[in-house]
Amino acid sequence: MKALWLENNQVALRDLPKPERPGEALIKIRKAGVCSTDLELVKGYYPYAGVLGHEFVGEVADAPDKDWIGARVAGEINAVCGACEACRNGRPTHCENRTVLGIVNRDGVFAEYTALPIENLHRVPETVPDEMAVFTEPLAAALEIQQQIQIQPTDRVLLIGAGRLGQLIAQTLALTGCDLCVLARHQLQKDLLAARGIRVISEEAIHPRKWDLVVEATGSPDGFDLARRAVRPRGTLVMKSTYKGDMTVNFSSIVVDEINIIGSRCGPFAPALRLLEKREVDPTVLIQDEFELKDAVRAMEKASQPGVLKVLLNCG
Amino acid sequence: MKALWLENNQVALRDLPKPERPGEALIKIRKAGVCSTDLELVKGYYPYAGVLGHEFVGEVADAPDKDWIGARVAGEINAVCGACEACRNGRPTHCENRTVLGIVNRDGVFAEYTALPIENLHRVPETVPDEMAVFTEPLAAALEIQQQIQIQPTDRVLLIGAGRLGQLIAQTLALTGCDLCVLARHQLQKDLLAARGIRVISEEAIHPRKWDLVVEATGSPDGFDLARRAVRPRGTLVMKSTYKGDMTVNFSSIVVDEINIIGSRCGPFAPALRLLEKREVDPTVLIQDEFELKDAVRAMEKASQPGVLKVLLNCG
Repeated sequence: MKALWLENNQVALRDLPKPERPGEALIKIRKAGVCSTDLELVKGYYPYAGVLGHEFVGEVADAPDKDWIGARVAGEINAVCGACEACRNGRPTHCENRTVLGIVNRDGVFAEYTALPIENLHRVPETVPDEMAVFTEPLAAALEIQQQIQIQPTDRVLLIGAGRLGQLIAQTLALTGCDLCVLARHQLQKDLLAARGIRVISEEAIHPRKWDLVVEATGSPDGFDLARRAVRPRGTLVMKSTYKGDMTVNFSSIVVDEINIIGSRCGPFAPALRLLEKREVDPTVLIQDEFELKDAVRAMEKASQPGVLKVLLNCG
Repeated sequence: MKALWLENNQVALRDLPKPERPGEALIKIRKAGVCSTDLELVKGYYPYAGVLGHEFVGEVADAPDKDWIGARVAGEINAVCGACEACRNGRPTHCENRTVLGIVNRDGVFAEYTALPIENLHRVPETVPDEMAVFTEPLAAALEIQQQIQIQPTDRVLLIGAGRLGQLIAQTLALTGCDLCVLARHQLQKDLLAARGIRVISEEAIHPRKWDLVVEATGSPDGFDLARRAVRPRGTLVMKSTYKGDMTVNFSSIVVDEINIIGSRCGPFAPALRLLEKREVDPTVLIQDEFELKDAVRAMEKASQPGVLKVLLNCG
């Protein structure tokens, strides 16, 4: 099968055997999405060699439990042991022995087929088309914020960054009724937010030390400094960006202001699919281009251009 | 009156007029305690010129409300406006216009007298002697941790640092029934913990990525790195230390591990006095030396020696 292989900071299309993982489902990929994490992996954020990609919708081609064959599915990306302390304590996405689809020791979805344990799979409701279902994983990551912290409807919330993930975070935060403002860099990002009635704010208009909650989703270290200035004493700063490198922070000011900083990663799939089914969010507005799998290298190039939102791959 | 004055990183005994703050209580200081923050202020952690000191027990010498005259009191250190957004939203210790006793624009308690608003005062129960009551402020700071986060009795808790504040944190955390281990540097620190049945752990024995909650109270940046290594994914890291300078942190790992970092500062006085009254904690074991106010410079020198715990000043 064709697949996009990453090795030594280089991506290239390769011919590979279909994945064979005993006990797991074999999934024929229909659509896959390019995520900022894929681009960071190419830059070397984390040492990974293998098939890239972790956002997908596909169809189960084979499975130990035959009921699943033919099912259209989205799939959670952490394949877990079920036995370690994290798994036994309800934190499977932090499994100590996990592999992660297209990220850690597990070939991903920029390919004709992938493999995942059946417990990772979620059936996609019939009324949710592929171009929506392919966003289940990043939408779940957006919802992780609300899984971790309580957002009060009266909260003043500042979202810094309105790219691929930021747009989904904006759409989900807006559903809480909170007083949301979004700092967006590019015109398209601003237009998409405005079209949903979400308030866009300029950096100059961000009042310092006033925001109950600040979400940092820029994908760059600059976002943190702005977030730190914006959050109020005893406020919460959620960090959604992963990138290579260290940052310098004045921790005494975090102690004096009693700031709460929370890292936030993978989220729950079932609520993401519920919101898609009810059309409470619309990720399809993010789609800017689609490529065939054979043109995956070009798709990656397109996705890495500044301001480009979602690029999809048609794999099936 | 005699008072210990800080200016340009130098402390010296001075003769000053009694404080006069209309509408506030005049308090005759009985005992005061030297805190790490006092030592950091001398080093220049925060630019302050004035009378040092914020931990005290005293007697109200004069007050607008005559009922308070003669009362033995401890006093909250943040004098607040009551009108700003922080005050109106139940966060008075974060008042935007606050002065802070011996720290920000308000003369402190290494003196014969100090002044504070009456609403800052807490009557000390008769059964709590001065040498206990003088610890009300740092004990309240220890309790702030439990004001901010829920500590489950099953939590594995690591406290890094067993100095002045660390000892009080250890005593209060132990009351939750949690599985507490404390990393202490000096033999006296270890002996005091052991005498209360609190487990002491060596750095080599700290299992990485295993602790539900890690409290950093070393007063130095090194403590953070160890705390970060020790805390489990989705665990909580409470930071109690303030010191001069910045720190370098890998924030991507905080995102991937979904760590919760919380700065923690001043805490509630009423529960601190309740615990003292019921003898659930015993801060007096920390007292290593007492000086008369006229020897306050020597008291500061003594307090700055490595491993020295509490040094008290007799001011009355």
